[in-house]
Amino acid sequence: VTSSAARQPDSDAQQSSGPGVDPAGVIDVLGALAYGELSAFERMATDARMAPTLADKSAIASMAAAEYGHFRQLCDRLRDLGVVPEQAMEPYVEPLDTFHDLTPPADWLESLVKVYVGDGIGRDFYREVSAYLDPDSRDLVREVLADMGQAAFAVDRVLAATSANPPLAGRLALWARRLMGEALTQAQRVAIDREAIVRLISSQADLTELGEMFQRITQQHEQRMRSLGLSS
Amino acid sequence: VTSSAARQPDSDAQQSSGPGVDPAGVIDVLGALAYGELSAFERMATDARMAPTLADKSAIASMAAAEYGHFRQLCDRLRDLGVVPEQAMEPYVEPLDTFHDLTPPADWLESLVKVYVGDGIGRDFYREVSAYLDPDSRDLVREVLADMGQAAFAVDRVLAATSANPPLAGRLALWARRLMGEALTQAQRVAIDREAIVRLISSQADLTELGEMFQRITQQHEQRMRSLGLSS
Repeated sequence: VTSSAARQPDSDAQQSSGPGVDPAGVIDVLGALAYGELSAFERMATDARMAPTLADKSAIASMAAAEYGHFRQLCDRLRDLGVVPEQAMEPYVEPLDTFHDLTPPADWLESLVKVYVGDGIGRDFYREVSAYLDPDSRDLVREVLADMGQAAFAVDRVLAATSANPPLAGRLALWARRLMGEALTQAQRVAIDREAIVRLISSQADLTELGEMFQRITQQHEQRMRSLGLSS
Repeated sequence: VTSSAARQPDSDAQQSSGPGVDPAGVIDVLGALAYGELSAFERMATDARMAPTLADKSAIASMAAAEYGHFRQLCDRLRDLGVVPEQAMEPYVEPLDTFHDLTPPADWLESLVKVYVGDGIGRDFYREVSAYLDPDSRDLVREVLADMGQAAFAVDRVLAATSANPPLAGRLALWARRLMGEALTQAQRVAIDREAIVRLISSQADLTELGEMFQRITQQHEQRMRSLGLSS
């Protein structure tokens, strides 16, 4: 199996992706998201160990298993595009692993904030980028990004904890800011290394649209922090 | 929802479980196995971090996700029996967590040996015990115990590593013995605490049959060690 960029002449690319959609960019987005789901799976399943009750452990395990299902769907789509999933994911292993290595949650609440705030930013970003994909890939990306109840679960548990112990909110707000900082650092590295993703977006969006996109992502982050009762 | 033991008069118990099957023992077995699957899921997903390649990581994640599916099936069966799954699992949380806390794999190969040797003993034990359950529970237990390719995967990777680096075999053999020792320690604790499981078996099997059962489990363990090329 060869990479899509090597395999497809322009006419094929246009047929499978629609005019104006660079297949290398599509593969980059799907590869990044696939590894994101696989590492979210790993991380949530690992954090299940910290759950204070069996019901919470079972709930986070269920979310982790759903992320694994999404990972499989994205791998299937990559194979349909003639790409070996591992090859498409490879460029994202190091930045995502570095992000997770630098932000190990110290306890269950930090883990929930990471799931909600960290994954939230990722979700918003991929949802925006999905607008620039071919229709089949776009539908799949939007499907795997659907909220599976993580948000309500995290908000419920964090609000209960901070209302019982208000000083916690300060620590968790700092934690969320650290997550944001590390996520942006890794995202910048990816943007520098992976031209195809940048080209995919910039070939279809002008600077104003890009500015609006980042504004929407920022606003949604601030909205999530408000839902948690934390200052952003 | 009340516990099955509190809810069911004898006639009900006989109707749902067949004559001679103590429903409290069935619930104990299903609860132990359910928590075993949940913690196997957690552990395998955690160990995925140590996988040397993306393909290996994806393979172990797939096995972990399958364990989660089994966990869900066992919880559904417990609910069908009128039992809250968390209540049935609770007595096994501490012994299983202690086992896993005392045996953290130091690397990917130790993790694979733990999956193969540790889960293998558990599987053999539950397969033996399944003979003493009501038919529906027995079928479910045998279904969730089916090998999903873990054995071949672990054997393949361990043999490749020890043939490239023979001294490794000594360390891994010691590791397997430590796993066995800790597993037996925790199993003894469970046997002392959970009379219903012991009663379930001893009401249906005589001492000769019990001796044969433990002999079969030991032989299968030795067979697995031979497959790995390790001395038991």
